[in-house]
Amino acid sequence: MQNIEILGLVAAVFTTSAFVPQVFKIWKHKSTKDISLVMYLVFFAGTSLWFVYGMYHESVSMILANGITSALILVVIGLKLKYK
Amino acid sequence: MQNIEILGLVAAVFTTSAFVPQVFKIWKHKSTKDISLVMYLVFFAGTSLWFVYGMYHESVSMILANGITSALILVVIGLKLKYK
Repeated sequence: MQNIEILGLVAAVFTTSAFVPQVFKIWKHKSTKDISLVMYLVFFAGTSLWFVYGMYHESVSMILANGITSALILVVIGLKLKYK
Repeated sequence: MQNIEILGLVAAVFTTSAFVPQVFKIWKHKSTKDISLVMYLVFFAGTSLWFVYGMYHESVSMILANGITSALILVVIGLKLKYK
């Protein structure tokens, strides 16, 4: 695998796993007051489009990153609505 | 410009502008208790690497998106540290 694709995969791991501590923090404290729902809705629209962009360019790192990130963002949105 | 690059630019606008409502919400309420600092630090590492990935692939949308997003994330991190 090309070095740049390895860098893409590492970037994918970071921008994807980054949401896990936020999901955990919400789960632990059952509080989302400070979190912007609009941010997560707009962000979800973006990662969905990036997913399509990655499919077109056959970029494994982009497909993985944006697919999993979109799923995690849906979890945050769900928790935000639950613990409004 | 190819359609797919237009889609990439739209995705870039979404994933970049998404952070603006979060910055605004923090600024308005001066509260960041529910926001995960770890998330934003890890996310910053990721968008920085995506920026390099975009430079390599000469993808205008990725360079723009990850450059501006990294800057906005630094603002959130700064506000998080200020209003701990």
